[in-house]
Amino acid sequence: LLPGLQRHRVASGEQVFDWTVPPEWNIRAGHLRTEDGTTVVDFCNNNLHVLGYSEPVDCWVTLDELQGHLHSLPEQPDWIPYVTSYYRKNWGFCMTHRQRATLKPGRYRAFIDSTLQPGFLDYADLVLQGRESSEVLFSTYVCHPSMANNELSGPAVVAALAQHVANLSSRRYTYRFVFIPETIGSIVYLSRSLTHLKERLAAGFVVTCAGDDRAYSYVPSRLGSTLADRVARHALRHHAPDYVAYSFLERGSDERQYCSPGVDLPVCSVMRTKYGVYPEYHTSADNLELVTASGLCGAFEVYRKIITLLENNYGYRVTVQCEPQLGKRGLYPNTSTKSSGELVKDLMNVIAYADGRDLVELADTVGLSGIDVINIIQPLLQNRLLEVI
Amino acid sequence: LLPGLQRHRVASGEQVFDWTVPPEWNIRAGHLRTEDGTTVVDFCNNNLHVLGYSEPVDCWVTLDELQGHLHSLPEQPDWIPYVTSYYRKNWGFCMTHRQRATLKPGRYRAFIDSTLQPGFLDYADLVLQGRESSEVLFSTYVCHPSMANNELSGPAVVAALAQHVANLSSRRYTYRFVFIPETIGSIVYLSRSLTHLKERLAAGFVVTCAGDDRAYSYVPSRLGSTLADRVARHALRHHAPDYVAYSFLERGSDERQYCSPGVDLPVCSVMRTKYGVYPEYHTSADNLELVTASGLCGAFEVYRKIITLLENNYGYRVTVQCEPQLGKRGLYPNTSTKSSGELVKDLMNVIAYADGRDLVELADTVGLSGIDVINIIQPLLQNRLLEVI
Amino acid sequence: LLPGLQRHRVASGEQVFDWTVPPEWNIRAGHLRTEDGTTVVDFCNNNLHVLGYSEPVDCWVTLDELQGHLHSLPEQPDWIPYVTSYYRKNWGFCMTHRQRATLKPGRYRAFIDSTLQPGFLDYADLVLQGRESSEVLFSTYVCHPSMANNELSGPAVVAALAQHVANLSSRRYTYRFVFIPETIGSIVYLSRSLTHLKERLAAGFVVTCAGDDRAYSYVPSRLGSTLADRVARHALRHHAPDYVAYSFLERGSDERQYCSPGVDLPVCSVMRTKYGVYPEYHTSADNLELVTASGLCGAFEVYRKIITLLENNYGYRVTVQCEPQLGKRGLYPNTSTKSSGELVKDLMNVIAYADGRDLVELADTVGLSGIDVINIIQPLLQNRLLEVI
Repeated sequence: LLPGLQRHRVASGEQVFDWTVPPEWNIRAGHLRTEDGTTVVDFCNNNLHVLGYSEPVDCWVTLDELQGHLHSLPEQPDWIPYVTSYYRKNWGFCMTHRQRATLKPGRYRAFIDSTLQPGFLDYADLVLQGRESSEVLFSTYVCHPSMANNELSGPAVVAALAQHVANLSSRRYTYRFVFIPETIGSIVYLSRSLTHLKERLAAGFVVTCAGDDRAYSYVPSRLGSTLADRVARHALRHHAPDYVAYSFLERGSDERQYCSPGVDLPVCSVMRTKYGVYPEYHTSADNLELVTASGLCGAFEVYRKIITLLENNYGYRVTVQCEPQLGKRGLYPNTSTKSSGELVKDLMNVIAYADGRDLVELADTVGLSGIDVINIIQPLLQNRLLEVI
Repeated sequence: LLPGLQRHRVASGEQVFDWTVPPEWNIRAGHLRTEDGTTVVDFCNNNLHVLGYSEPVDCWVTLDELQGHLHSLPEQPDWIPYVTSYYRKNWGFCMTHRQRATLKPGRYRAFIDSTLQPGFLDYADLVLQGRESSEVLFSTYVCHPSMANNELSGPAVVAALAQHVANLSSRRYTYRFVFIPETIGSIVYLSRSLTHLKERLAAGFVVTCAGDDRAYSYVPSRLGSTLADRVARHALRHHAPDYVAYSFLERGSDERQYCSPGVDLPVCSVMRTKYGVYPEYHTSADNLELVTASGLCGAFEVYRKIITLLENNYGYRVTVQCEPQLGKRGLYPNTSTKSSGELVKDLMNVIAYADGRDLVELADTVGLSGIDVINIIQPLLQNRLLEVI
Repeated sequence: LLPGLQRHRVASGEQVFDWTVPPEWNIRAGHLRTEDGTTVVDFCNNNLHVLGYSEPVDCWVTLDELQGHLHSLPEQPDWIPYVTSYYRKNWGFCMTHRQRATLKPGRYRAFIDSTLQPGFLDYADLVLQGRESSEVLFSTYVCHPSMANNELSGPAVVAALAQHVANLSSRRYTYRFVFIPETIGSIVYLSRSLTHLKERLAAGFVVTCAGDDRAYSYVPSRLGSTLADRVARHALRHHAPDYVAYSFLERGSDERQYCSPGVDLPVCSVMRTKYGVYPEYHTSADNLELVTASGLCGAFEVYRKIITLLENNYGYRVTVQCEPQLGKRGLYPNTSTKSSGELVKDLMNVIAYADGRDLVELADTVGLSGIDVINIIQPLLQNRLLEVI
């Protein structure tokens, strides 16, 4: 699928910064049945039915005893919630609140055939070399792919971006695509690459919730004005001007680790509707009705523009003093009329601010999209009226 | 009353910066009587009746001659104005405009038994030693205590703050409480302590108009963003969010001296309703109907919070890279549900911005009151997840 | 007219930065006639009738052939447009759209007796020496003076400013008044004086569209906060608070050259209604009905204030610590009443911020016009309470 993708693993028990890699959880089966053998919920039908990271259990319990192990959403009675218990041993079942309300007094058999044993945390990455050793990072998480927007959409969009970047005829930056479990995965990844990334990372993005077709969203880096932030905001302002800009206080994914104090990598997040904000989040309704082709394409498209901007985000400087004479180079209308001044206004504004500032700042200054400025710049570069610095 | 309070005096005629300590004014009696001996006004009834700093006089004048020596308020006809003439020799009487209108033509005896002679300017201060030699200053003025909000409330609140600070089990800062006459007093005080204060003053406050129950007010220092300003604004924003923020252009008390160019001590002023703004200001109506217990307590409470903030206003820095694992320390809920992310949001935000910034900036960044942040920080300090820098 | 005005010329063909001085255009006659000899338009009646820089022509053309050489304004049918073709050889006639609509099919004789030959570009400047070698520049253009606001008003106002400056009893700055053709003229001027101006120019202004009586306008320098910008904005804010502040993106005159990257002289532009914005711009209706005495006087007056501000724009610093005692110098009312505080408020505010900041910043800080602050400062300087730094 992605040539060059490398798989890695770390063993349970390994110390990574303040954390310990947890035991590996595997589950073969899980169901809840009534005394007469009727199945209430079964992991085979929907893997959300078993509380994530449940320890093995096989026991008979009364309904009263069972209630403490059940999870449902009274206000969203038709959806199964997604619940986990990573760091406290527990077991449980999740179901719609409507189903839970039909449970009758009596004895139930809770059966979960799982293991929680020393094993491995698996993750993968793909590095595509560019002309420069400076890197651009796309990080996404693979820990609960049975839900669609959060979080199969992230790996899907990152895989598409990797293919896009692999097909570029020339690459300025080296690109790094990372597929990890959330939180502990990014902590593991940083524990192995922090020095490398501190030295080389130009811009990074946490790609998540990239598939629905409602909003565009942005969570800044902790520092707020890194290259990643500048390019992301510029791309969004021109691609989706009504995007929702959250504060870093509203973060919730791996930018928590990438941007923690002292780590402070230039990593922000561009999303469609943000985790926690849409009602289907972390429920069975986060499915392929919510995630659409146009939703995924929209996220892909913004990131594609971000890549184009980054690849062209050099400083540009005019090579002559005073305005260049564009007419003799065929870049200026020859007859001066009342409106001809307007015709070359954008061109002259780009020249006027080509004082070494980079593409994004130049575009922001002259009020154009960076993509438009790239087109304006080309003939000026060809005529050696601009130089790259 | 205030153990440790030190009294000081400087002699009339002493040069202090651009000023000279004036002669001392004392008054034994003062009244205005009609020809038939009826008392019009008498200093014994209200000391505002005699123009402040009046020279001695004992003479008969016609009503016409008298008018130039009378002061009243046509638009506030029932109040006696407070008028002084410090630097030009003069005498006069102040009365309600309603009374003045009843004066009949005829001869009046003006009698003021006062002295204006070389003497002393008296003031007092109290220093409470802390662990650090850095100081916090509270300055108030004692030159017209016959009015209530301006200005018996200031000395009353400062005395209460001194008792509060004296009772603290431990003090970080050294506290200095200053009781002086306005303007000439602060100039005298600065002439004796400027070098000391320039070296040691961390934050200072001019306490005045601290007793009515209408508004909260703030006058910044000249520089505008000293520690005193930052803490005062933070305290007010959370204690009284609708407080009135004046410009330094609207100053009018001893911050004029503490903040003059080159002096520029970190001194601002937190008040209830500001001098000059409330109608009773500098009249007989600035009395104990205007000043209330809750008014005084409100001012005390803001300053108490300012002291708490200052005492805890260290820089805090997280000790681990990436997020710390709070669960293993009992600081995090163990079951991940849709809402559990919100539960620890404030805690995680404090950690995310604990990059060395001080308490006030940290609280402003995460959108909490500094008092709340102090509570959040305690268990993190105990678990050595934060360090003080 | 202007004693000391120096005329200069450069020869056609000379290289100036990226440009070449063009051939000199002269015209003796030009008219368009019908077959029966009736004059359609004649240069003698209005010099706008001939396309600027037209090459010589004498030929018979059909109406169809002629149309490609005609210029008119369908939406302003009674005005003759001003059109030029500097850098592509061409010829043409300009007329009202109403007249153009009456042209009947048939043959027309196009006759233009012009020359386009090696010659000279003429310009002039006047330098008035001041106490300092630092310079203030006023630049205006003389290339199409047959229109009134754009652009006879500019040379008129600059000539008046030169007379005003010549009559000043004392000058701090050296003043430079420049009369050039637009664009190529400023490029020529900069090619001869860039090093000098980079070293000496304190503030400069492009004076254009200085004669109508509608708006006041401002175009900043490219850098936006040079001394020229600061003084211009301050003067406008107090002289014409509803002035229109344009962005440098809306520039259109010689600030294009004075402010190009690397040149970046402190040059902005204060105008009445800006070129391109008023409907009569570059048409025969830009005449002496549009330009008025009060329009010209308004522009002159703003620039006169700008000169006054510049001449007084020193840093001022108070010479005493704490507030000075104004009373003993006769600068303060002696009787303290409820309102006397207000009377000296402006004076005290000027003193409070006289910490070395310059006049414009000082005036902005205390909320007064710089002209008012100059008046407040005089007695303080005389009493040595302020010093110039």
